[in-house]
Amino acid sequence: MNTISIILVNPQMGENIGMCARAMLNCGLTDLRIVNPRDGWPNERADAASSGALEKGVTAKVFETLQQASADLQVTYATTNRLRDLVKDVYTARAAASEVKQQNALGHKVGIVFGPERTGLVNEDIAACTKVISIPLNPDFSSLNLAQAVLVVGYELFTAQSAAPDSFRDLGDTNPATLDEVEGVIKRFETEMEAGDFFRAPDLRPTLMRNFRSFINRGQPTAQEISTLHGVLTALKRAANKGNDKV
Amino acid sequence: MNTISIILVNPQMGENIGMCARAMLNCGLTDLRIVNPRDGWPNERADAASSGALEKGVTAKVFETLQQASADLQVTYATTNRLRDLVKDVYTARAAASEVKQQNALGHKVGIVFGPERTGLVNEDIAACTKVISIPLNPDFSSLNLAQAVLVVGYELFTAQSAAPDSFRDLGDTNPATLDEVEGVIKRFETEMEAGDFFRAPDLRPTLMRNFRSFINRGQPTAQEISTLHGVLTALKRAANKGNDKV
Repeated sequence: MNTISIILVNPQMGENIGMCARAMLNCGLTDLRIVNPRDGWPNERADAASSGALEKGVTAKVFETLQQASADLQVTYATTNRLRDLVKDVYTARAAASEVKQQNALGHKVGIVFGPERTGLVNEDIAACTKVISIPLNPDFSSLNLAQAVLVVGYELFTAQSAAPDSFRDLGDTNPATLDEVEGVIKRFETEMEAGDFFRAPDLRPTLMRNFRSFINRGQPTAQEISTLHGVLTALKRAANKGNDKV
Repeated sequence: MNTISIILVNPQMGENIGMCARAMLNCGLTDLRIVNPRDGWPNERADAASSGALEKGVTAKVFETLQQASADLQVTYATTNRLRDLVKDVYTARAAASEVKQQNALGHKVGIVFGPERTGLVNEDIAACTKVISIPLNPDFSSLNLAQAVLVVGYELFTAQSAAPDSFRDLGDTNPATLDEVEGVIKRFETEMEAGDFFRAPDLRPTLMRNFRSFINRGQPTAQEISTLHGVLTALKRAANKGNDKV
């Protein structure tokens, strides 16, 4: 549960509103406020473009002005990359998301405000907001469509709230092998390597084995992969023996 | 300059390829590799949907297989949220971007691999990649369109590479006032407040003034805003005097 509203000011195409709703729900946001939509509301094209988001969870309300849409909110962030003649604190989407996480925890109601497709927010609307979000992008080609801007900000909000680990190993049904199992297959490799005359320079053997051991361990093999490696060794030996039979 | 390639495997609609190119250039990415596009290449719809990105900077090359498209790369990340029966290290887009930044600094060539619109990457393609990126989103509604997935990953890559400050104050043509200027207007307020019988309980005056001073300083006013505040005080006084004249 969050206390975040997405406010679209004067959006034009219904499709874009629908895609915004979809991007919102992607990011767990459900409170959509639409200020003076050009093509009216409700809007069939918006429903179609939302991929079900307007049915499944996003609630849309229509307002006549930004002031009305943000009347009950405590902080609003205007999204814009073109700040002119206004003194405002400008945050990256990520820094804003980090702030919003705190505000959310305190129960403060927050709005993120997006302008119409072509022109973006006008200065009067930006002035009425508390702060500004500017999404850092290629300065030579920074224009995003409305739903993409909502997605990037929403993604940052979601990421700030969620406790997803930076990375994890998806092991499915298997488990990491024990180090003893790993060492077992390494030893067997070494035996076969020796048998195959791999260690022609005995001095280098420790280094070669250390590097090989390091490589195998680096992949942190699963129990199943160790079985597979054993199977591979067996098969290679079998193939070699067959080859010898032929000779 | 970066060493990152975006690889689209079996993309279907030209529009989507074009929107991917646009999202790429938004994020400063220019090397697009397309594996076996359903509707052929070049593609007019892709050009139109790219908003000029396919003319202005993104170079697209077509390959027959993912193996061919990634032959010269050193690390590939498969983007998928549905990892089944494969043991892979799964990274958030952010954690992957942090790794890619290092790889880039070393000149290592990196590919980010995206599957076709509906089905996403198949296991054979995921297995051929080094690692996996999973974009953390609402688990109940996590499906992104292709260009949006490219945008989120690209945005993370751009953010990891760029040194944008978390926040800054956009001051336009003006400058922060000196603290002496700020104090000057506060003192003038205090004089007017006193004249207006604001401090009825003299004991509370220090606290009231401390809070008022804190509020004014919190906004860190500009020199121009201080002038404005002086003007406001003058105007309020003038208005009050006029009122008195009327009485």
